Amino acid sequence: MKSIVCSIVPLLFAATINAQITDPVATEVWEPEPRHITFNEDEVPSDAIVLFDGTNADAWQHGDGSAVKWNVSDGTMTVVRGTGPIFTKENFGDCQLHVEWSAPTEIVGEGQGRGNSGVFLQNKYEVQVLDSYNNRTYSNGQAGSIYKQSMPLVNAMKAPGEWQKYDIIFKAPRFNADGIKVASGTITVLHNGVVIQNHYELKGTTPFIGLPQNPAHGDGPIQLQDHGNPVKYRNIWIREL
Amino acid sequence: MKSIVCSIVPLLFAATINAQITDPVATEVWEPEPRHITFNEDEVPSDAIVLFDGTNADAWQHGDGSAVKWNVSDGTMTVVRGTGPIFTKENFGDCQLHVEWSAPTEIVGEGQGRGNSGVFLQNKYEVQVLDSYNNRTYSNGQAGSIYKQSMPLVNAMKAPGEWQKYDIIFKAPRFNADGIKVASGTITVLHNGVVIQNHYELKGTTPFIGLPQNPAHGDGPIQLQDHGNPVKYRNIWIREL
Amino acid sequence: MKSIVCSIVPLLFAATINAQITDPVATEVWEPEPRHITFNEDEVPSDAIVLFDGTNADAWQHGDGSAVKWNVSDGTMTVVRGTGPIFTKENFGDCQLHVEWSAPTEIVGEGQGRGNSGVFLQNKYEVQVLDSYNNRTYSNGQAGSIYKQSMPLVNAMKAPGEWQKYDIIFKAPRFNADGIKVASGTITVLHNGVVIQNHYELKGTTPFIGLPQNPAHGDGPIQLQDHGNPVKYRNIWIREL
Amino acid sequence: MKSIVCSIVPLLFAATINAQITDPVATEVWEPEPRHITFNEDEVPSDAIVLFDGTNADAWQHGDGSAVKWNVSDGTMTVVRGTGPIFTKENFGDCQLHVEWSAPTEIVGEGQGRGNSGVFLQNKYEVQVLDSYNNRTYSNGQAGSIYKQSMPLVNAMKAPGEWQKYDIIFKAPRFNADGIKVASGTITVLHNGVVIQNHYELKGTTPFIGLPQNPAHGDGPIQLQDHGNPVKYRNIWIREL
Repeated sequence: MKSIVCSIVPLLFAATINAQITDPVATEVWEPEPRHITFNEDEVPSDAIVLFDGTNADAWQHGDGSAVKWNVSDGTMTVVRGTGPIFTKENFGDCQLHVEWSAPTEIVGEGQGRGNSGVFLQNKYEVQVLDSYNNRTYSNGQAGSIYKQSMPLVNAMKAPGEWQKYDIIFKAPRFNADGIKVASGTITVLHNGVVIQNHYELKGTTPFIGLPQNPAHGDGPIQLQDHGNPVKYRNIWIREL
Repeated sequence: MKSIVCSIVPLLFAATINAQITDPVATEVWEPEPRHITFNEDEVPSDAIVLFDGTNADAWQHGDGSAVKWNVSDGTMTVVRGTGPIFTKENFGDCQLHVEWSAPTEIVGEGQGRGNSGVFLQNKYEVQVLDSYNNRTYSNGQAGSIYKQSMPLVNAMKAPGEWQKYDIIFKAPRFNADGIKVASGTITVLHNGVVIQNHYELKGTTPFIGLPQNPAHGDGPIQLQDHGNPVKYRNIWIREL
Repeated sequence: MKSIVCSIVPLLFAATINAQITDPVATEVWEPEPRHITFNEDEVPSDAIVLFDGTNADAWQHGDGSAVKWNVSDGTMTVVRGTGPIFTKENFGDCQLHVEWSAPTEIVGEGQGRGNSGVFLQNKYEVQVLDSYNNRTYSNGQAGSIYKQSMPLVNAMKAPGEWQKYDIIFKAPRFNADGIKVASGTITVLHNGVVIQNHYELKGTTPFIGLPQNPAHGDGPIQLQDHGNPVKYRNIWIREL
Repeated sequence: MKSIVCSIVPLLFAATINAQITDPVATEVWEPEPRHITFNEDEVPSDAIVLFDGTNADAWQHGDGSAVKWNVSDGTMTVVRGTGPIFTKENFGDCQLHVEWSAPTEIVGEGQGRGNSGVFLQNKYEVQVLDSYNNRTYSNGQAGSIYKQSMPLVNAMKAPGEWQKYDIIFKAPRFNADGIKVASGTITVLHNGVVIQNHYELKGTTPFIGLPQNPAHGDGPIQLQDHGNPVKYRNIWIREL
């Protein structure tokens, strides 16, 4: 009866080869259900921690813990030269950060001297704020650069006085028990809606002088820099990722 | 005079150990200079390829190469049931894609049957479009999911009739000469400005039935899906990365 | 003497622009100092946790916590059919894992039925062990595959009875407080010294039937599978990364 | 008969919710079939390009295209001081590279002056070769460092005269049409079988003086450095990935 056996084998083989998922339900995943978030009139998502909504600087402090001496008025917060940088009272790790800023309408200085400030993640990693509108400086120091590390893919700068938007997606670096960095931080930045840093791997800190450093650290505050120029900020919020 | 020479060596050694970068210019990079881009009144960047600006569907075609039968009026493009999906005439690889869409005001159906369409990168990887406002379906099939692969981190859906924004950052997968995938594609999606896919590594294609597939391929068109519901689109642009 | 002062400024400016790092010491990093490790006669690094050195199975247990019923003799540990899988008593996260194994010399069965076992990271992610020497099966199920997920880049299998080496570099997936996976695990595998999985991003668990799942979890044990075939193991060690 | 219809609906619903993949064949992938490779007596895989097998230096040349002046004898190739570095005649991109080397038995000098050489990927990215056995130098310059960038996770150095193994997995950086780097190169290094660089993202080139640079470039040769010390090499092979 060998011929019968032989004729079955190809059938089985065909069945095996042709086995398929035929029910679309098989690839559905129902749990967990993502939380529903909403938006207020300024497009701030409901799960964000609002760091500045135009009314007060209560989420911030100077380095010595004192109240913010920057100028809060007309829904904006303006750097006051010589008062020093400000820091969020809360510490953050992986996050999405939204910041709007505006370079001074009165154009003073050039290069790094014009409309200079900065947004620091974990008080260590600076996304440069600068008036880079018709103002040539070193590429890794213009607006949207990871300062002294990574130039922006393009210069998406609007004119002084116009509001600029930064949408930043940040993953903090990781360190092992020996204090050696085992995973670089990464950063994506959209400037006015345009990708200018695309999952950039941070080399380390962003000093003015010298090289990136990689000290082991945990969460840290957001810092806004006082670089002596009256840069304005508004509508700042953060979401932990 | 050997003793004099010897006494100099330790001095040099000490100097060497303490050497530091003291000049901030040392860490400046001036070249290349990022291109300056500008924005039009709709915030479209000047280096984008505009795929739909409200006036015509000339950048698109149906699968058979015929002119788009969807309804273009009032600055929007609405899916016409049964006409089939549309594809960009041009092929794309790594890119930033901006799409605005709106679910039908008249609520019809539920789950996958309500306000369903989709945005496909390279004609293979779908970011789901669905009316996910008070409309429970499987998590990996709601608006902003990588269809049947990755649920959104949160549900950032606005109400039907309101405009939704997708900002998508896409890196295409890579394949070697043996046809084996050697680097996953990655995708980041902001829905109404909120990160819902964070550098997600694509498992492969996004079929309705069955598993992700990983056929070797090159660049491909953007597809907008006809799923039978009159979803509206506007303001679509893409930037090659 | 104002003119003299003015003439100095351009000189300083030029000097600044041309400033360079000239001292190689500036880019040296001295701290921390990597720990020095040594090797024993079997090339086991001194900072490894030895999971099996040929003498006993004390680092392992069955699922019910009972002592290992596999056969330990001649410096090897052989699967005993029907006794069930074994698990390390200790849990692990990110790690480097070294495993040596050997397929049965007596060739019995074919496809998945020949020399089948498996190495599971965190008790969830299987690197397939199979006699894939002249034994065709599905590509994503042969030796060195991430089971039912990722075929090996090449088939680096030696003959039955010969010792095979797996060197595995594993980064565990991360989950957020909502139970959503926010970073895929990654895995690199060298099979007999050849890269067969190159920083592969895990889709999730590796079930025999059905799709990868992504339940939130922490550290877990290494599992060695009892698939009914007398596969041999020796020289197993792990280093936490 | 309405009641009958109604009673069917919940049944269908339940069936849909519970639909599962029940056939394990559904998740099998059979194509493509990974190529089978074999190994010679030195464990060199059959798909490798052998760069040095102990007999001659024909795969290499000096910078001016002249024949290699290093000393080939006894199955090894020894740096001859002052002859300059050697380069593969062929260019490479993404690859796995295996190199064995040995520091001079006669210990001369200290720090960077002892047993110094180097392996450069694409003629730009150096994995340091140094006698780091009881020989303190800057951490980012010891054996296994990405020179002046990334210290090894541990010091896995064997004594002078013993053979050291490097297994390197390299992905080359990518650049866009503007000459801006859009993806960092990555490098994993196993030193004597121990992971010392774990998917490290290259900052750029690895100069002795100054900062990493990121000039756009394509494939390039492997370079072995002449740093004046008689370091020995043997058993060098590469596989394109």
